[in-house]
Amino acid sequence: MSEPFLAIDWGTTNRRVYLIDNGQVLHTDRDDAGALRVTDFAGEMAMLRARFGDYPAIMAGMVGSDVGWQKVPYVAAPAGLDELAAALTYIDDRTAIVPGLSLSGTSAARCDIMRGEEVQLLGAVSAEFVPADGILCQPGTHCKWAWMTGGKITSFVTAMTGELYGLIGAHSLLAPSIQTGAENLAAFREGVAQGSQRDLAATLFSIRSGIMLGHRKPSDAASFASGVLIGADVAARLAEIGARQIYILADEHMGHLYANAIDVLGGTAERIDSHAAFVAGITAIWNKR
Amino acid sequence: MSEPFLAIDWGTTNRRVYLIDNGQVLHTDRDDAGALRVTDFAGEMAMLRARFGDYPAIMAGMVGSDVGWQKVPYVAAPAGLDELAAALTYIDDRTAIVPGLSLSGTSAARCDIMRGEEVQLLGAVSAEFVPADGILCQPGTHCKWAWMTGGKITSFVTAMTGELYGLIGAHSLLAPSIQTGAENLAAFREGVAQGSQRDLAATLFSIRSGIMLGHRKPSDAASFASGVLIGADVAARLAEIGARQIYILADEHMGHLYANAIDVLGGTAERIDSHAAFVAGITAIWNKR
Repeated sequence: MSEPFLAIDWGTTNRRVYLIDNGQVLHTDRDDAGALRVTDFAGEMAMLRARFGDYPAIMAGMVGSDVGWQKVPYVAAPAGLDELAAALTYIDDRTAIVPGLSLSGTSAARCDIMRGEEVQLLGAVSAEFVPADGILCQPGTHCKWAWMTGGKITSFVTAMTGELYGLIGAHSLLAPSIQTGAENLAAFREGVAQGSQRDLAATLFSIRSGIMLGHRKPSDAASFASGVLIGADVAARLAEIGARQIYILADEHMGHLYANAIDVLGGTAERIDSHAAFVAGITAIWNKR
Repeated sequence: MSEPFLAIDWGTTNRRVYLIDNGQVLHTDRDDAGALRVTDFAGEMAMLRARFGDYPAIMAGMVGSDVGWQKVPYVAAPAGLDELAAALTYIDDRTAIVPGLSLSGTSAARCDIMRGEEVQLLGAVSAEFVPADGILCQPGTHCKWAWMTGGKITSFVTAMTGELYGLIGAHSLLAPSIQTGAENLAAFREGVAQGSQRDLAATLFSIRSGIMLGHRKPSDAASFASGVLIGADVAARLAEIGARQIYILADEHMGHLYANAIDVLGGTAERIDSHAAFVAGITAIWNKR
């Protein structure tokens, strides 16, 4: 019989805790005690155990970075669940951290890193939510695109699409026009088509020109700008992979936007439950340790 | 015989004042009393006349915008010096503002605006620094590219390249690595080559990955990032115009960077004295009024 365990998806600004038994989530909760806000990780873990039960724990994400509990070396791609399970770093005999993945190409231009996303990506395969040779996309501040081969992550690329949108909305000359989210789907899709020209600096400025000349409603600017940035990201990927099926691991809002962008640019998108994928991945690693 | 006049290139954050007589600059000075910092424009003008001489004055730039002295309607491109001179807005009978230019295409995507740059662009032609059918580039916070036909500005595009660089250096995850200017020309040119892939969100993130994995020196990050952004801007323009001769109106630092980027990407660049171009343009408008 199995023993329950705690699984923690511990990112930079948030964390989600799962109490898992026999592959089933008995309890889960999310808070904003991300790695950047925590200094006493041992104390945090004691509090989590006091709250969720005194079980062994496995963590993934920025908790394993130099701003986390302990820096865990990256595992080099290609890698799958076996490689991650074999490279767990143990804080003590019942507290482990999953390594992140690195991609070291022949040049700096094709190197990349991830911490935490690998569990969702590989879990989606192990749960058979996606095929073992699929292309997966995880939208977000740093959007990850991953190429899977035989159930391993063979290559990936990170685009700081969400971060650029945040910078532009908070600090650019467009900031006064970008106070809302992307709520107008038609304007978003128009932005995707423009963004696919991959001329970001000019297309973003055209938002201001369009408002000044009466060609664009200020209330649509946020949706259009979001489309421009996501459109450029998706177009760069589709230029490499062709109009393939893409599996999106995201929350409702971002999943909806990326699925629309992929649709506008001629690809096919299917959305996958990212929480279920994480649970499947972390359970598989736990069972392989 | 001519009378001296004051010409003011009055931008958002800076202004430069010239006392001009017979096409010669008798005196010039620059300060940071840009349109955003000034509320009493009449008082500022009185102070400038007390300092430079009580002469008639002509202004260009954001002083003619809704954050300036008086909002001056745009003149629609194509337009040349005659159209600008015919559309001067007079504050009083010896104080005039040059209109900006607008480009209203068939869609919001191809519309654009400028205020102030038109004087340099058209002055460069009237002074015969550039041919009447040249392609001109004015690097900066909002880089302008202008297509001239028969000495008129027929089309132009603005890329917020400098603003994006500023945002990334000040507020992004790369900010700690981008504390210096672009001083390593080899890293800048490498960035240009990468930026020409026009996959900004991914190429910018690769700077962080490269540093984390030891493929890139943190001290080169600023130069590389500048190259990525300028390379994407130049590549988008060269994709439209081909490997043509481009005339750059800029200060020493930005002119050097854009000339290098154009060189890396197969174009030919010639640098033009932007202050002399402004003086030629504003003098020609003054004489045509």
